[in-house]
Amino acid sequence: MNGAQALIRTLVDSGVDVCFSNPGTSEMHFVAALDQVPEMRGVLGLFEGVVTGAADGYARMAGRPAATLLHLGPGLGNGLANLHNARRAHTPVVNIVGDHATYHKQYDAPLESDIDAIASAVSGWIRHSSAPDRVAADAADAVAAAMSPPGQVATLVLPADVCWLPASGAAAPVAAPTASAVPADRIDEVAKVLRSGEATGILIGGRVMGEAGQRAAARVAAASGARLLSETFSARQARGAGLPSIDRLAYLAEFAQMQLDGIAHLILVDAAAPVSFFAYPDKASVLTPEGCHVHRLAAGAEDPVAALEALADALGAEADVLSVAASRPERPSGALTSETLGAAIGAVLPEGAIVADEANTSGLFIPAATAGAPRHDWMTLTGGAIGIGLPMALGASIACPDRPVLALQADGSAMYTLQALWTMARESCDVTTVIANNGSYAVLNMELSRVGAEAGGPKAREMLDLHGPDLDFVALSRGMGVPAERVETAEALTAALERAIAEPGPHLIDAVVPPLGL
Amino acid sequence: MNGAQALIRTLVDSGVDVCFSNPGTSEMHFVAALDQVPEMRGVLGLFEGVVTGAADGYARMAGRPAATLLHLGPGLGNGLANLHNARRAHTPVVNIVGDHATYHKQYDAPLESDIDAIASAVSGWIRHSSAPDRVAADAADAVAAAMSPPGQVATLVLPADVCWLPASGAAAPVAAPTASAVPADRIDEVAKVLRSGEATGILIGGRVMGEAGQRAAARVAAASGARLLSETFSARQARGAGLPSIDRLAYLAEFAQMQLDGIAHLILVDAAAPVSFFAYPDKASVLTPEGCHVHRLAAGAEDPVAALEALADALGAEADVLSVAASRPERPSGALTSETLGAAIGAVLPEGAIVADEANTSGLFIPAATAGAPRHDWMTLTGGAIGIGLPMALGASIACPDRPVLALQADGSAMYTLQALWTMARESCDVTTVIANNGSYAVLNMELSRVGAEAGGPKAREMLDLHGPDLDFVALSRGMGVPAERVETAEALTAALERAIAEPGPHLIDAVVPPLGL
Repeated sequence: MNGAQALIRTLVDSGVDVCFSNPGTSEMHFVAALDQVPEMRGVLGLFEGVVTGAADGYARMAGRPAATLLHLGPGLGNGLANLHNARRAHTPVVNIVGDHATYHKQYDAPLESDIDAIASAVSGWIRHSSAPDRVAADAADAVAAAMSPPGQVATLVLPADVCWLPASGAAAPVAAPTASAVPADRIDEVAKVLRSGEATGILIGGRVMGEAGQRAAARVAAASGARLLSETFSARQARGAGLPSIDRLAYLAEFAQMQLDGIAHLILVDAAAPVSFFAYPDKASVLTPEGCHVHRLAAGAEDPVAALEALADALGAEADVLSVAASRPERPSGALTSETLGAAIGAVLPEGAIVADEANTSGLFIPAATAGAPRHDWMTLTGGAIGIGLPMALGASIACPDRPVLALQADGSAMYTLQALWTMARESCDVTTVIANNGSYAVLNMELSRVGAEAGGPKAREMLDLHGPDLDFVALSRGMGVPAERVETAEALTAALERAIAEPGPHLIDAVVPPLGL
Repeated sequence: MNGAQALIRTLVDSGVDVCFSNPGTSEMHFVAALDQVPEMRGVLGLFEGVVTGAADGYARMAGRPAATLLHLGPGLGNGLANLHNARRAHTPVVNIVGDHATYHKQYDAPLESDIDAIASAVSGWIRHSSAPDRVAADAADAVAAAMSPPGQVATLVLPADVCWLPASGAAAPVAAPTASAVPADRIDEVAKVLRSGEATGILIGGRVMGEAGQRAAARVAAASGARLLSETFSARQARGAGLPSIDRLAYLAEFAQMQLDGIAHLILVDAAAPVSFFAYPDKASVLTPEGCHVHRLAAGAEDPVAALEALADALGAEADVLSVAASRPERPSGALTSETLGAAIGAVLPEGAIVADEANTSGLFIPAATAGAPRHDWMTLTGGAIGIGLPMALGASIACPDRPVLALQADGSAMYTLQALWTMARESCDVTTVIANNGSYAVLNMELSRVGAEAGGPKAREMLDLHGPDLDFVALSRGMGVPAERVETAEALTAALERAIAEPGPHLIDAVVPPLGL
């Protein structure tokens, strides 16, 4: 057994049995070892942003990490944007970055670079595996680090010789710490705030966005009269009929300020204090009203759901909460717009669906149109680094092969990691991709005016325009082996969605939607 | 005038008038300011790897930097691999990374990350512009830093409020230092080595790969009998009939060792000491023979061409050197193979062509087949981070719109930054792309055996295989607005090349070439 085999065996024993890979020469022993450890599944991505985004989507749905396999500093760099999103989502990822052999690094060969510097921007844990007899234990530690609450990216740098030299064997799994209990006096303090009669908001996020967390939060809100909101961009939210109805904090600062207006206290439960996504001239960064007291019920390694349940009990909350009734929009007809796009998806979203949402401006009406749909999970862009939608959908489908996956994808951001389509075809993933094709970086047209810049001239507008030439997503999709069609009416979209969902394997629908007049 | 306008005006005054851009919200004032400074050309890329690779190709041909415009840490991450290649090529690049407003950074908004850590892996110079009255001077310094011999990546981090606040005006250009002269005693020492009668090699690279440098090196070799070699991967090499014939150091360590066998001295001229690209079990990292003395004639900020000319004069070298005679291979016929691929390109390569070479294994026969072609320039992958070929071709075409550009592109690496095709179409670049389509990461199949890994099993081979589904580059190219055709014979390739070269604008040829039996 060599180091690579000991490493992969340990990963599998530790519960990591999928490796999204884009290897190079320094990873060849790892690749060769895949045949010696048949339980490890290798999934090839044509670009590292696909690999890291898929690892994020996988772990959000599987609840345990996938491994990535990346080629030295540049390979890590190519995967960095989606690791940034994973960091913001607190997704557990075991990032394996191949490196030159230990003795070869001194020669500054062309691919040598400062891997640690690059990795430090996204990783909560970094280690260089220094010897073949240590690599197995390093792998077990990496998995435990990734799984440490609330979850993080753990990066293991793997020199080529550590892979190819003989190793003594696999290592036993290392248990990750469990989430810690929130102290009772903090729960009491928050209960006191909620009983004070002062206007109070509760902002939930992260691990609270599952069913148990949302129910507990809704119980607290119902018992206390507090205003309940959820974070703008969740890693994974349970949604649909039968769950409580919880408003999402708006992306646009002005709207978020309205949602928070008048509160004297804000209680954060596994959520960050609300700040503007970007700064704008003469607009606030902090979105809570002046003088608002911010309290943290649970964060970091603490268990936020148990804390909410204890808080609900302390408040004497009812066990049952009001839930969203089952309802679907009517099948839309006529022109394809952001509204009818939302209605079409709401009309057909199948039970148990997983939605990877990177629809950006075109997606504005989709959440409301799907709120009463059968139960489903919703994943969003947590870190603002566009280009995660398709990889995330791919990873979710690898994690949950029996569930239908719907990728709601803006055109501009689709082009960052479009190579994910190829892996969907290769792995026969049941993913239906809807490209909301408005021919522009529409969000930036909106932002151009919001930042207060002088009215965009022709050169500025050209930088935000995706026409000239038009992107033909049907051709692009077929070029990577994914069947595709273009639709220009609401009826055609609804019918195409039904066909794509009914037929196994990946499909793409290029939906021509005019930009929102924001 | 605001900070963004002062910045762009200063860049233009300093000779930087092209900005390859992939902006986001924090860069909107920069984008808006493009209309206020009409001399600055904005070129939109759909992905940051296109932006940075284009900036590299542009500067290699223009001899002065382009700017990039990137969106915070994740945007820089997406562009990092091609900045790594630029770092290895010593290409001057002025990297502008937008950042949150200075006062907004403390709130850890979703896109906040450690930009400095990421930038440090590729940049020789980093500065945060801290105030609108400083940004113009910072820009002038950045250009001078990028142009400091031998050239480097200079990264200016640009907070959004520094752009939108009023600024006092543009700054005067800052002169970059000129290359320093190599001390006479070092030239004497090297001359002594060359006169010693001991077997000596000369390895040239970097700035020596232009016409003057190659002629001076060939004079030295002819006068001394030294063995003359050029580095494996040059940023830009002048080639073709009328230039001296200089062997290139082989990529494979075993072949490079044969080329260096028996030498007692190696003289480096703007080239790194030869080391294996990767380490392999039981193979050497250092490629010079044991006991070989390595001397540096010129490196870093020194002027290597002047040093070679002085050395040639010191050796009493003839002014004229033997040159490659004009010759072209015959138009090939029959099956499309790596050999006939080379012959087809050699048969039609137009005078003044710029070749962006990322053909990898499929390109093995192209250099010999084009050695006697009309004069042209050749750019290669300097840092081993694949995915630069198409962006580099794009950038070269923006720098030299009147010269035909030929992108020789392997299929696997094409998929990293294929979005470059869209910008080629948008900007009507005269680029002919030849995809050497062998349906695999062929170089890795070779490396899998070379690293001594146990014979690749089916799972390992699957990680290197690009079939299932086949990539249809004709569809992918048309999907981004570039006309394309597929060829399967040598005659068809030659004819397609002639058509593509004759017609303005971008074209793509999907050339089905079986993998080399290496």
